[in-house]
Amino acid sequence: MTAYQDLSDHFGRIAAVSDALGILQWDNDVMMPVGASARRGESLAALNVLRHGMTTDPRLGDLIASAEADTGLGVWERANLREIRRIWTVETALPADLVAASARAVAACEMAWRQARAASDFPALLPRLAEVLRLQREIAVAKGERLGLSPYDALLNDYEPGGRSADIDLLFDDLAAFLPGFTAEVMERQARRPADPPLEGPFPVETQRALGLRMMAALGFDFTRGRLDVSTHPFCGGADDDVRITTRYDEADFASALMGVLHETGHALYEQGRPAAWMAQPVGRARGMSIHESQSLLMEMQACRSAAFLAFAAPVLREAFGRSGPAWEAEALRRRFTRVAPGFIRVEADEVTYPAHVILRYRIEKALIADQMPLSELPAAWNAGMAALLGIVPPNDRLGCLQDVHWPSGGWGYFPTYTLGAMTAAQLFDAARQADPGIMEAIAGGDFGPLVGWLRTHVHGLGSLYETPELLTRATGRPLDASVFKAHLHRRYLDEA
Amino acid sequence: MTAYQDLSDHFGRIAAVSDALGILQWDNDVMMPVGASARRGESLAALNVLRHGMTTDPRLGDLIASAEADTGLGVWERANLREIRRIWTVETALPADLVAASARAVAACEMAWRQARAASDFPALLPRLAEVLRLQREIAVAKGERLGLSPYDALLNDYEPGGRSADIDLLFDDLAAFLPGFTAEVMERQARRPADPPLEGPFPVETQRALGLRMMAALGFDFTRGRLDVSTHPFCGGADDDVRITTRYDEADFASALMGVLHETGHALYEQGRPAAWMAQPVGRARGMSIHESQSLLMEMQACRSAAFLAFAAPVLREAFGRSGPAWEAEALRRRFTRVAPGFIRVEADEVTYPAHVILRYRIEKALIADQMPLSELPAAWNAGMAALLGIVPPNDRLGCLQDVHWPSGGWGYFPTYTLGAMTAAQLFDAARQADPGIMEAIAGGDFGPLVGWLRTHVHGLGSLYETPELLTRATGRPLDASVFKAHLHRRYLDEA
Repeated sequence: MTAYQDLSDHFGRIAAVSDALGILQWDNDVMMPVGASARRGESLAALNVLRHGMTTDPRLGDLIASAEADTGLGVWERANLREIRRIWTVETALPADLVAASARAVAACEMAWRQARAASDFPALLPRLAEVLRLQREIAVAKGERLGLSPYDALLNDYEPGGRSADIDLLFDDLAAFLPGFTAEVMERQARRPADPPLEGPFPVETQRALGLRMMAALGFDFTRGRLDVSTHPFCGGADDDVRITTRYDEADFASALMGVLHETGHALYEQGRPAAWMAQPVGRARGMSIHESQSLLMEMQACRSAAFLAFAAPVLREAFGRSGPAWEAEALRRRFTRVAPGFIRVEADEVTYPAHVILRYRIEKALIADQMPLSELPAAWNAGMAALLGIVPPNDRLGCLQDVHWPSGGWGYFPTYTLGAMTAAQLFDAARQADPGIMEAIAGGDFGPLVGWLRTHVHGLGSLYETPELLTRATGRPLDASVFKAHLHRRYLDEA
Repeated sequence: MTAYQDLSDHFGRIAAVSDALGILQWDNDVMMPVGASARRGESLAALNVLRHGMTTDPRLGDLIASAEADTGLGVWERANLREIRRIWTVETALPADLVAASARAVAACEMAWRQARAASDFPALLPRLAEVLRLQREIAVAKGERLGLSPYDALLNDYEPGGRSADIDLLFDDLAAFLPGFTAEVMERQARRPADPPLEGPFPVETQRALGLRMMAALGFDFTRGRLDVSTHPFCGGADDDVRITTRYDEADFASALMGVLHETGHALYEQGRPAAWMAQPVGRARGMSIHESQSLLMEMQACRSAAFLAFAAPVLREAFGRSGPAWEAEALRRRFTRVAPGFIRVEADEVTYPAHVILRYRIEKALIADQMPLSELPAAWNAGMAALLGIVPPNDRLGCLQDVHWPSGGWGYFPTYTLGAMTAAQLFDAARQADPGIMEAIAGGDFGPLVGWLRTHVHGLGSLYETPELLTRATGRPLDASVFKAHLHRRYLDEA
């Protein structure tokens, strides 16, 4: 057996443990009875320790060096080896007890967060969150030292390999300067047009679920390798060949679940479209979180809030809910699904105000990781940032700094990828339409085949073969910038509004 | 840290991995999309290998010896140490690659079995099942050499620690001699009484599920630490503090799902009642499969087919299904639920003919493990055994040797525990009623508290503190024999019929 084959087998076994963790985490959020949480925390911690032990196996350093000297490897093998070295470098930066302590702190903090959010009680969460943050800083410092990165960039690197906050600062400062004036102009424009009549509920959960399944099928979701379920916080998770998305239903408003399903289906199509031959190898993984989020936003925002999609969807919605009238016409639905209004909740935000939510969180988490702000000041900093970026202040912390699971669950350095994803989505969708002008017409007929086919070739099927900038340059002709995203917003919300 | 504490921590981590396996197996049978089975097989195999590595850690031999020399241990610690040595002795008998090969063969065979059963196609299963059997024999020989047991007894020992086929032969030969004549007498008696009118369906699945949940609550199931779901083959599984039972619904017949739920709830009450302080340690585990099955049969057969329970259940059933009339009176339901008739399917068998199904399987699997019969002759041997023991021959293998998942899933040596459990159930229930004469009256009022309280004290809360014969002797005053079971059958099916 060559060194490369030995490594490949080893990382295949690591993938099998990661798959187990994916299903256990899904079960934790979707199925688990409440009294099992303590023992489940032990199980997740134990498997994380075992996986960490596998990725830091003392044999790996020499094996990687030997494989790198192997001149017989193909392009995929060499890229796989590059990803293996990346993982090994990051993982060997952390002692096993730090990994286990972080997993336990996160499990406890997530439980506390559920109660604290319900009660809008930030002080109740503070000690648990401080412990998570303390451990995240330890992790950030250890990884940063190993990788030659600042602590924040070391965390960002886990979600966005190669990403740097210096670059993000430039992109986000650009958006932060553009959006307030643009948002005001859009809202002024929308205020002048007559209000559409309301979409009157109730919309039964079972009907919404059937509609979601129908739309997932239209987009190309493979139900032999995935599921749709319910959880408090929607996500796309599961395992290889077992991609599980979740949503939550509101009988008074079908749109949030429907758009959520379309969003998570975008993530799921990426996971289901990864290269089958490399599914369980590092090079077969999704490239990073900004590309991942680009796939969900490309579906939800770019494709499914378009006039073309709503021409297809309007009669489906009317039939599903047994409704009719002017509010249910395609153009009225398009206006509704592109309505802009600053709000408190990130996951309910429209695509124009969404970046402000992300920029707020990005700036705060950078300051917290750099220890430039006490955690106890989080609510005040949050509210000040909301006032500055969106012109509104949440009346309580449930609608403010307690709304997201990311920080309690240890997901620091993740938030910027949402807006990097939005910009990437605009750039990819634009390139796809230029490459295949029939894409929008097909979508208007309920056929996502041409769009998904282009994505399979230029994104999904490539896994982690290329670094993110190269992936984007090959697909769109240039690295990421904000111009296509801004042009998209201008066209949709001013030119075509 | 003492050697004992070190061991205790180590086996706590092993329990966390076992819990993960329990949830993954549940998910495999209840939730998983069909296309995920290959990758899931990899995950289960990987975790089994990791767990095997933990139970065979080279440090353990010395640690166990050091702990055994520790004179400061209490009675629970000493019993825990005895169980740890038992596990370590068995596990170190097997090389890791044999464990992994068996897990993979089982995963493949289970999938093949599902198709082969549906198509009644034994030849299609034969190669996969032969591979499972070949690996089971290897396992049996390796364990038997280590433990000084015959190969079959070495497999039996996994499910029934200390159990010996020589003892089972005596008990089963006794039953095999008693039952045919007794069954004929019961059937003759039942043939003379007028037929009850049918229980007319349909019985909607949702109503059946609600009824099952209500009965689980009446028996004392803790829903904060467990669930009820649907699977093809009902089981009780899951993890510590997360006990998950399954059933399957037939809209034409509510009784099979209801009785199945009562049966699995008996298993679940045992799991939920294990000693909390020792939950994740070997001494806190269920004692063995005959005691486990005794808990399900004590609920389903002893308690819930009694006149007392049906006096409580009859009005609940009438209300749930909106039915009335003579067929729905308690005594008519009691007659229906104690009807005896030889049939092809074990899981549908009544308590009088059930042992014949078990004796058949026990004799066949003993012969197969001992290599005294070619696997290709299984259908013929099965049909000959059915003719001899029950006087009927299945028309196809779907109703014959393909009906059970046990052999395809690697559960060799398990079958005898069903009938050992039936005898144990009779002996325990008899002792409980003698100790607390109010038990039946409470059940007639829908209150299982007195019965479950006795079981908590004498069975559930003891975990694996005592070996099986001592547990039974402490609870009932004597080791297991068939006399109480036979007296129970005589009373229910002849004296009170």
